[in-house]
Amino acid sequence: MTVHDAHTRVLVETEHDGHLLQVPVTRVALTNGDTFDRYCTEGPGSDPEVGLPRLRESWIAGRGDTAAYDGRQTQLIDNGKAAVRRGAAQEEWRGARQAPLRGAGRPVTQMHYARKGIITPEMRFVAEREGCDVELVRSEVAAGRAIIPVNVNHPEVEPMIIGKRFLVKINANIGNSAVTSSIAEEVDKLTWAITWGADTVMDLSTGDDIHTTREWIIRNSPVPIGTVPIYQALEKVNGEADKLTWEVFRDTVIEQCEQGVDYMTIHAGVLLRYVPMTANRVTGIVSRGGSIMAGWCLAHHQENFLYTHFDELCEIFAEYDVAFSLGDGLRPGSTADANDEAQFAELRTLAELTQRAWEHDVQVMVEGPGHVPLNLVEENVTLQQDWCHGAPFYTLGPLATDIAPGYDHITSAIGAATIAMHGTAMLCYVTPKEHLGLPNRDDVKTGVITYKLSAHAADVAKGHPRARDWDDELSKARFEFRWRDQFALSLDPHTAEAFHDETLPAENAKTAHFCSMCGPKFCSMRISQDVRARFGSELGGDLDPEVGMKEKSEEFLQLGGTVYVEQ
Amino acid sequence: MTVHDAHTRVLVETEHDGHLLQVPVTRVALTNGDTFDRYCTEGPGSDPEVGLPRLRESWIAGRGDTAAYDGRQTQLIDNGKAAVRRGAAQEEWRGARQAPLRGAGRPVTQMHYARKGIITPEMRFVAEREGCDVELVRSEVAAGRAIIPVNVNHPEVEPMIIGKRFLVKINANIGNSAVTSSIAEEVDKLTWAITWGADTVMDLSTGDDIHTTREWIIRNSPVPIGTVPIYQALEKVNGEADKLTWEVFRDTVIEQCEQGVDYMTIHAGVLLRYVPMTANRVTGIVSRGGSIMAGWCLAHHQENFLYTHFDELCEIFAEYDVAFSLGDGLRPGSTADANDEAQFAELRTLAELTQRAWEHDVQVMVEGPGHVPLNLVEENVTLQQDWCHGAPFYTLGPLATDIAPGYDHITSAIGAATIAMHGTAMLCYVTPKEHLGLPNRDDVKTGVITYKLSAHAADVAKGHPRARDWDDELSKARFEFRWRDQFALSLDPHTAEAFHDETLPAENAKTAHFCSMCGPKFCSMRISQDVRARFGSELGGDLDPEVGMKEKSEEFLQLGGTVYVEQ
Repeated sequence: MTVHDAHTRVLVETEHDGHLLQVPVTRVALTNGDTFDRYCTEGPGSDPEVGLPRLRESWIAGRGDTAAYDGRQTQLIDNGKAAVRRGAAQEEWRGARQAPLRGAGRPVTQMHYARKGIITPEMRFVAEREGCDVELVRSEVAAGRAIIPVNVNHPEVEPMIIGKRFLVKINANIGNSAVTSSIAEEVDKLTWAITWGADTVMDLSTGDDIHTTREWIIRNSPVPIGTVPIYQALEKVNGEADKLTWEVFRDTVIEQCEQGVDYMTIHAGVLLRYVPMTANRVTGIVSRGGSIMAGWCLAHHQENFLYTHFDELCEIFAEYDVAFSLGDGLRPGSTADANDEAQFAELRTLAELTQRAWEHDVQVMVEGPGHVPLNLVEENVTLQQDWCHGAPFYTLGPLATDIAPGYDHITSAIGAATIAMHGTAMLCYVTPKEHLGLPNRDDVKTGVITYKLSAHAADVAKGHPRARDWDDELSKARFEFRWRDQFALSLDPHTAEAFHDETLPAENAKTAHFCSMCGPKFCSMRISQDVRARFGSELGGDLDPEVGMKEKSEEFLQLGGTVYVEQ
Repeated sequence: MTVHDAHTRVLVETEHDGHLLQVPVTRVALTNGDTFDRYCTEGPGSDPEVGLPRLRESWIAGRGDTAAYDGRQTQLIDNGKAAVRRGAAQEEWRGARQAPLRGAGRPVTQMHYARKGIITPEMRFVAEREGCDVELVRSEVAAGRAIIPVNVNHPEVEPMIIGKRFLVKINANIGNSAVTSSIAEEVDKLTWAITWGADTVMDLSTGDDIHTTREWIIRNSPVPIGTVPIYQALEKVNGEADKLTWEVFRDTVIEQCEQGVDYMTIHAGVLLRYVPMTANRVTGIVSRGGSIMAGWCLAHHQENFLYTHFDELCEIFAEYDVAFSLGDGLRPGSTADANDEAQFAELRTLAELTQRAWEHDVQVMVEGPGHVPLNLVEENVTLQQDWCHGAPFYTLGPLATDIAPGYDHITSAIGAATIAMHGTAMLCYVTPKEHLGLPNRDDVKTGVITYKLSAHAADVAKGHPRARDWDDELSKARFEFRWRDQFALSLDPHTAEAFHDETLPAENAKTAHFCSMCGPKFCSMRISQDVRARFGSELGGDLDPEVGMKEKSEEFLQLGGTVYVEQ
């Protein structure tokens, strides 16, 4: 499902180790005969009840370092109390089921291969998507400055990379809550999110049927799926945080590893001694996982079990190639609390954990805020990059002000573009419903588009190779009044076209040299073109760098070459 | 018309020179008995056919330096060709008509008074609104680093100040085009824009009835009104830019001075020799005024008449206290063209013109772009401030990328917040319709709210006194689950409440300690409060800085003080 008639998902072929890799791009056909290729996230499309083709199956098998095994038995409680009562989950997964794989004795992570100097098909695929040298991919992954989140049990994924030398990525959160949503809705939100450009999707379900919802999502997802396993673990202990144990948590993590989750948020930096640092905050602890673990630490007078068992987690993640997303459980929830002692104390611990994970060849990214005044944004990424030795930073916004609930996709887009320009590798979207309610389908789209434009603004600001080409292509279409191309090149062609058509719906307005904004007489671009047409020779003689422009200029001269138009 | 039941427009009284000044604030009544005062732009409200009370009439008269005179006779062509055909304008202004005032022999500008060491009622009013010392206002105006745009023929205006030491302001553009809109619609857009917080409004009408539309707008506007007089001048010469003359332009300027326009965009920096510098741009000249003047210069092989007659313009502006908004006719229209030779050549000329205007005691602000990649934004304001000796900068966005038509309020909010943080004094809004069509009422609201949040984000980043109080007030309401207060304190209470109610419409959800986003068990703020309630003594004993919080904590303890909630 492409978003526009002028778009086609095209598979570009590249060779790897004697085999053919097919790497998708979105090709935009322009009315002037040119094409423009864009990064493509939407995948090949799937029947939700069947799932996607297993693109990476042979790549994984070819490495010969994983083995299938029986796996953990699914339990009713995996789907929550309602399933226990009912004796079954709703809408059991109906597609094929595979025995899970895991590493046979040594890490099976992309970081492990990269450090060994091995170029994997995943790395080749990523290099083709990014338009960069594969050695850049390998070396950045080896150094921990980039990750390719690809669980061996998620062969459906089209590999992508998260790191500051690459295109800035965006994540869309979906998932039900106790209050709302169904499995079908969540699968639909996944498809919708990747259609508009989400690079990864986090399933943050906290309601019923968490296990089964996730199964449907992973089997249909061509993008990496992230989760926060503490949410499901909490459901298994009846929502009573005090009853959480390492054993329940570990079992939940293994359950999710076997399903194919590609990265997991782990709030291992919320240490007992940091919790009092939040006591005088305006908004306390605003991370769900952070507040659960803070409560647990205080109730048990013990150190966070995610911290004390961190090496065991690393061993598990290394077996499946699950990446850490080290959660910032003490992130600020208001501009007042930004960059405070609690936040930075936790970041120091996340830096320590990053290095521990790397000792196991496990890939890591580090999560960041949240709510931060614009003058304090840069410090967040600078310190994170410094302390965490360049591990990718993954931030939620940040929101640059707290005063605009209902518009927090925008307050956060401001912070997001800024923090990404300074080196954040992935941005977690914020929808207009942030702080107010669960996002619906429209909110997901608005959030994704808003974050795509923020990420792209950062790519342009960073001078990322080829990033500005997209801007230039659209600007040329705009200047040449190729309205259809301007729409097709937009992040959201439908909205652009609908807005144009609201005042000028007629077919011939799509080729008109003006729009309703200024009308024909005041269209600066039209006048500017006329000026070029009339006075080209005086403007230095090297006008009309585009052949298309020259033709248009000649048309104008033939039409009398006036600077103005009679109404 | 306030935007919410909890809002009241309150007049705060202050004394000036033995007289009472009444300065408006928007007072937000909170459910905990507190109030929060916000800057108020909406004015006292008016019957559109009568207009607003003449707040400044006695202040202006009291200075004894202006005199009424017959003024220019209104002509049919002032309202365009349709009026000439028809023999009348549509919807003639029906309110009272006053003979225009002008200075009697010496400048009547706020800059003139400020330089003489005189504190005017306008300065006192502004100081009260800004919550600053009046001497700061006077000295900044005297130095040219701030302007108070207040035409002596716009006594209805509530004075406001534009300068980097003060709150960042926003402008909303309204106005018809040849394609669409009526007078009543434009007056409605004005009222709508100031209701949501526009600090100034520009009437950019380019269609029929320009004179009369402006009369209705000024008589009903409590905020300064800006225009681009070349638009009306072009209408008077039948849309044929070559036929423009200094005389037609000067007559139009005087017409607008007599009506009460507070600031005018003058594209006097588009010099003949700069036009060729745009020849190889991706998007040429994208300012309407800039393209008109570029065409005129080339057609006549003469220097821009706005430049050659600039001193005469200064003399006129000094008689009415009209401020210059020096137009950036060569601003970039795409990220590709940002910070180029043409743009900066013009800026050098605008700097020269700034000083020439100051020699006449005429207030000046300087317009800026446009489309600028995020890494080049700061340079724009740094150079402008340096070259123009601190004259206020007034920018259109800038848009940080070109790829998102339909979302350019957001692409530009990113650039706007950034450029304002670095010292831009006023931001011209961009609506979702930018590049696509004329904004309607909804677009005006979206544009204004988006720019209010951008301006406020900059105020917070600049550490502007009291700016963060608003964030903190809202964040406290959020943390204490005072949903009604959170809505009332929002920039857009209706949208915030509607988004909340979409999933939880019940009355008791307005006091619930969760929302549909996470549901009760996963509400981090609820858990965080519970943690404080259970473990307060362990967290250092100095918890609960708020009495309200303490009461809530006690409530929690009485309710069992659990960290979790049974569903």
